[in-house]
Amino acid sequence: MANRKLAFTSDYMEGAHPRILEALTATNMEQTPGYGLDPFCESAKDRIRTACERREAAVYFLSGGTQTNAIVITAILKPWQGVVAAVTGHIASHEAGAIEAGGHKVLTLPEYRGKISASDLEALLRTYDEDANHDHMVMPGMVYISQPTEYGTLYSLEELRAISKICRRWQIPLYADGARLAYALASPENTVTLPDLAKLCDAFYIGGTKCGALLGEALVIPDPGLLPHFFTIIKQRGALLAKGRVLGIQFDALFTDGLYDKVGETAISYAVRLQDALEKAGIPLLFRSPTNQIFAVLEDDMKKTLDQYVETSFWEKPDASHTTVRIATSWATSQEDVEALIDLLTRFRQ
Amino acid sequence: MANRKLAFTSDYMEGAHPRILEALTATNMEQTPGYGLDPFCESAKDRIRTACERREAAVYFLSGGTQTNAIVITAILKPWQGVVAAVTGHIASHEAGAIEAGGHKVLTLPEYRGKISASDLEALLRTYDEDANHDHMVMPGMVYISQPTEYGTLYSLEELRAISKICRRWQIPLYADGARLAYALASPENTVTLPDLAKLCDAFYIGGTKCGALLGEALVIPDPGLLPHFFTIIKQRGALLAKGRVLGIQFDALFTDGLYDKVGETAISYAVRLQDALEKAGIPLLFRSPTNQIFAVLEDDMKKTLDQYVETSFWEKPDASHTTVRIATSWATSQEDVEALIDLLTRFRQ
Amino acid sequence: MANRKLAFTSDYMEGAHPRILEALTATNMEQTPGYGLDPFCESAKDRIRTACERREAAVYFLSGGTQTNAIVITAILKPWQGVVAAVTGHIASHEAGAIEAGGHKVLTLPEYRGKISASDLEALLRTYDEDANHDHMVMPGMVYISQPTEYGTLYSLEELRAISKICRRWQIPLYADGARLAYALASPENTVTLPDLAKLCDAFYIGGTKCGALLGEALVIPDPGLLPHFFTIIKQRGALLAKGRVLGIQFDALFTDGLYDKVGETAISYAVRLQDALEKAGIPLLFRSPTNQIFAVLEDDMKKTLDQYVETSFWEKPDASHTTVRIATSWATSQEDVEALIDLLTRFRQ
Amino acid sequence: MANRKLAFTSDYMEGAHPRILEALTATNMEQTPGYGLDPFCESAKDRIRTACERREAAVYFLSGGTQTNAIVITAILKPWQGVVAAVTGHIASHEAGAIEAGGHKVLTLPEYRGKISASDLEALLRTYDEDANHDHMVMPGMVYISQPTEYGTLYSLEELRAISKICRRWQIPLYADGARLAYALASPENTVTLPDLAKLCDAFYIGGTKCGALLGEALVIPDPGLLPHFFTIIKQRGALLAKGRVLGIQFDALFTDGLYDKVGETAISYAVRLQDALEKAGIPLLFRSPTNQIFAVLEDDMKKTLDQYVETSFWEKPDASHTTVRIATSWATSQEDVEALIDLLTRFRQ
Repeated sequence: MANRKLAFTSDYMEGAHPRILEALTATNMEQTPGYGLDPFCESAKDRIRTACERREAAVYFLSGGTQTNAIVITAILKPWQGVVAAVTGHIASHEAGAIEAGGHKVLTLPEYRGKISASDLEALLRTYDEDANHDHMVMPGMVYISQPTEYGTLYSLEELRAISKICRRWQIPLYADGARLAYALASPENTVTLPDLAKLCDAFYIGGTKCGALLGEALVIPDPGLLPHFFTIIKQRGALLAKGRVLGIQFDALFTDGLYDKVGETAISYAVRLQDALEKAGIPLLFRSPTNQIFAVLEDDMKKTLDQYVETSFWEKPDASHTTVRIATSWATSQEDVEALIDLLTRFRQ
Repeated sequence: MANRKLAFTSDYMEGAHPRILEALTATNMEQTPGYGLDPFCESAKDRIRTACERREAAVYFLSGGTQTNAIVITAILKPWQGVVAAVTGHIASHEAGAIEAGGHKVLTLPEYRGKISASDLEALLRTYDEDANHDHMVMPGMVYISQPTEYGTLYSLEELRAISKICRRWQIPLYADGARLAYALASPENTVTLPDLAKLCDAFYIGGTKCGALLGEALVIPDPGLLPHFFTIIKQRGALLAKGRVLGIQFDALFTDGLYDKVGETAISYAVRLQDALEKAGIPLLFRSPTNQIFAVLEDDMKKTLDQYVETSFWEKPDASHTTVRIATSWATSQEDVEALIDLLTRFRQ
Repeated sequence: MANRKLAFTSDYMEGAHPRILEALTATNMEQTPGYGLDPFCESAKDRIRTACERREAAVYFLSGGTQTNAIVITAILKPWQGVVAAVTGHIASHEAGAIEAGGHKVLTLPEYRGKISASDLEALLRTYDEDANHDHMVMPGMVYISQPTEYGTLYSLEELRAISKICRRWQIPLYADGARLAYALASPENTVTLPDLAKLCDAFYIGGTKCGALLGEALVIPDPGLLPHFFTIIKQRGALLAKGRVLGIQFDALFTDGLYDKVGETAISYAVRLQDALEKAGIPLLFRSPTNQIFAVLEDDMKKTLDQYVETSFWEKPDASHTTVRIATSWATSQEDVEALIDLLTRFRQ
Repeated sequence: MANRKLAFTSDYMEGAHPRILEALTATNMEQTPGYGLDPFCESAKDRIRTACERREAAVYFLSGGTQTNAIVITAILKPWQGVVAAVTGHIASHEAGAIEAGGHKVLTLPEYRGKISASDLEALLRTYDEDANHDHMVMPGMVYISQPTEYGTLYSLEELRAISKICRRWQIPLYADGARLAYALASPENTVTLPDLAKLCDAFYIGGTKCGALLGEALVIPDPGLLPHFFTIIKQRGALLAKGRVLGIQFDALFTDGLYDKVGETAISYAVRLQDALEKAGIPLLFRSPTNQIFAVLEDDMKKTLDQYVETSFWEKPDASHTTVRIATSWATSQEDVEALIDLLTRFRQ
């Protein structure tokens, strides 16, 4: 066993995919205008429009997920509206009140392994239609989902279509948080492509930070009319980088020669391999995850020993003697570390 | 003359100083915790505390100037307070209303080449003290200055002490925006050191984006008690990078082996050289600038010709037949380009 | 049966108690300073301080409940904090997102007939203490309760003491919404006095609008240091009346010769009488209410007939064939109307 | 001379016009729905629509000027916009930062006795059109004027038309603050009628608080499409009175039998009389005021003596030995007090 402690804590423990660093280095001394008005950003936007099969889409580069969520949601919602999300949605619980700081309520729906259901959504929207007394309440003004979800699960194309249909019937925008989108797209279980997202959502972002970039998310607005003066809003919210090219160069690299696919595939192949090993070792999974986040239910004694050799993330305590941990793979996970972890798990079970 | 068009538009036209890129590359595959809780950030904070001669200071890394200004100011001000700034202060006019979006008014003072005067400040504060009727008005709750200012000018140590003294007498924090601080510190005219800032200000930031980093500003809070729960506020405002190390590694490099000094010195030496050449060529300066932003008053005919060979920034129209342009040097300016520009200026005047 | 339709919809269907109108009329042409700096406001504050047995309390007059809640909560909370409330709390669901519009999240707890439990509160606060990972979440910064609750129920002195004790241990303010406080104070089941509220809460308001005034709520801050510059905050939030005396005169009348007690007693005596009659008529109550809001579970057929003669408020549909309605009495309810309603109920059941 | 001190401090020193109190008393025990959905509000709206010759206008009743300004402006502006106002506009300086608390900047223009000029406005708007660099600045999104202004002056119909024309050309709403509108409408110099305001403005309010009501302002939106879901916004901002009728009854009275005209006429006739007397006594006016606010420039010695007998408002110190004071008349000013003041002024000058 390696002396170095293994780390499967998250998918943002390293820097950037080497091809991104190479691109930053190769272009470093070129002179370009600031604020994202440079040719690298233009090229990256162009590649993303192509990948989404949506030439008219507006693409904006932002720095992180909470920032992107807060800015898009605040820009879309009217003062009397709130955003609908699963009770486990990232905006509902793990963004320090960013949506409320922007003046809006998060209206929560039940979650099914991180997903909302079309029928719950429709029931919610229907009450606002029927009941005259809702003038004293926050009205649903958009829907937030994440693909994959905070549990690593995926909306199927059918599920996404159902949600999208309801949103359009009720004329409220649908927004998808794709912080880990590369890991969704690379999943063998995935049925939702980038062009599907561009057709069914009114806004979504393609995650960079957790998918191989140093930082950065690419926000796609299929119909640019949704967000007038969005450049100024980005500036006002402190999210406009003077050297906007830093984001453009990275996304340009991610969408060149299939790098974004490759980033996902590596992680998924290791996640599959690890889940097989866990099952073989008799360690129960919370459920079989289709993406790069794996949830294993460990006996507390076993966890204590394991903690000496490998870092994972605490997820929850299902009962007094067990702990569910999250094991995350990424573009940066090495085969060596995966084998070392499997070796560990196998030994413990013997 | 080179075929390539010269560009002296700004100090954020290139990527990062090569030593920063090298540091990012060298550390790329090391695994660290997220959100700035990594050893690179710790090391960078340590170096900054040392440079400021203030061991107890809190240091936070943020992505850009508007973001830093908006978050610090919103975090410091109470609901009934506003921030005092020069009418030309960046927050007063060029941040798309970021302060107001955070709920606060910018209370403007007259500017003297971008600086406020201690006596104007005192007069303003005195009126709020004397006049009983100010309960219906926004009360000054902090003071914003920039060093160097938006005009490239510098507060002398004496001026800064006078402003600081007033702020302390009236018990309101003093905050200095150091977006281009490297160029202040390297100026032969400068009398204000980092330890001076740490002694006389309650908050200030050391600019990275315009001083050689890809992105990033280092906020220094000499007395950390000023900003409780600031980590959560940073998260809430969408400014917490998952890979916080990206900022830590850069500032660690900037404060290793005097890189931050070197960045400034290069720019200043070329600014001096260019101002000498302009004067020699008989082209009037708006004033002799002590830092890396130079303001030249061009006849419009001359400007038209010059525009074919070199990019500068429009500043203002002092009269119908002249235009003031800003010429900026930076850590990335090359001797070759400086000589080419001087050559151009000389020829025009012959 | 009277031709006029009976109305038991709410406790704000009429103007003001006659003694309030008389006071407004008697003082009408007296000249006073504006903005609540008049002798009527002073006198009213003095009477309220006396009634609360808290000479040092600050008292502010505001116009309505949502306004008072929004301003107090926004003034108390720090940017990283939210307010804890029952899921049925008025601020959580019926104030159109006023708290979120002020930048803060409502953190909900389970409700027990509108009340929160001390143990649920303690469990919530404990998680924020224990778990290191809460820097990404909204921290509880104060507790909101209502007395009586939205269900007309009452916190006992023991219950209030338990909640207050927890709040003080965790150093977060406790705030009580007393929109209908007169009806709590007059209830035979009530064990919480005004001095108790002043001892156990950090802020509470004595409702006027629903307790006999044209409009107005009296906010009591037992320790005035809690809300510095609150006058300016009231002005900023658009809640400062130029003729502040309009509120002062009304509260002065309400706290003269026991009017506030009398307002409650009338309503409670009729609520008792109506609940007796409902029970006698075999109409189930949702529960026996201690205050002026009564909840009766009607068969839908019966409701349809009843609706022709009397107005009530829809509360909920417990099942397919029943409807729960709210019947509210007030200071303005007449014996004649109460007898007419009892007569109706008796006839239906025959 | 009366022993009682005379008071000409403001137009909100008394309660309400007797006819308003009579209306409140006469209707007191009638039962109506809450939240402004009562027949009194309907009747008042109807009378106001008639007076404005605008049947399709939406009318909303709010409690005070700052509240009305803050809610309308926040509801109209988009996140990237600010409101244009005279530097002396009430929203710019005397509302405790209410506009900024709502997230928006006040963009100030020079004032000419409280008025803005059409040409200054056009010049401002033109810069935003021409200059590409304004994406980093707050864009003008509406224009605020007051009629009469904070100096008691009036926009002529011609001036209002010019401003309105520019607003429509640039497609930004024009909003008029009519806190003291009765005194404008009754001025012999006035050329702008209620129907003119309804034609030329996109929103304006008819002041009640300073024009004879206990409290209340009537907001008129000639084209209701301007403010969707405004009822919910009013609720969210804490401005929805449960007993909305309190405002409806008052405006119904104000717009019955010409009471609103009468309120203004009384005040104006006394203002004319007082200005004549001041001039006769050789006391300089700042300018001859067309409405109920008079500005007299007193020698400081004279002021000291006068202060013993009459209360006025401090306005400014034009030089070391003089003070400008404001003398306000209102619907409540008595002939007796006016004569007593004239008597005083005459004596002093002898």
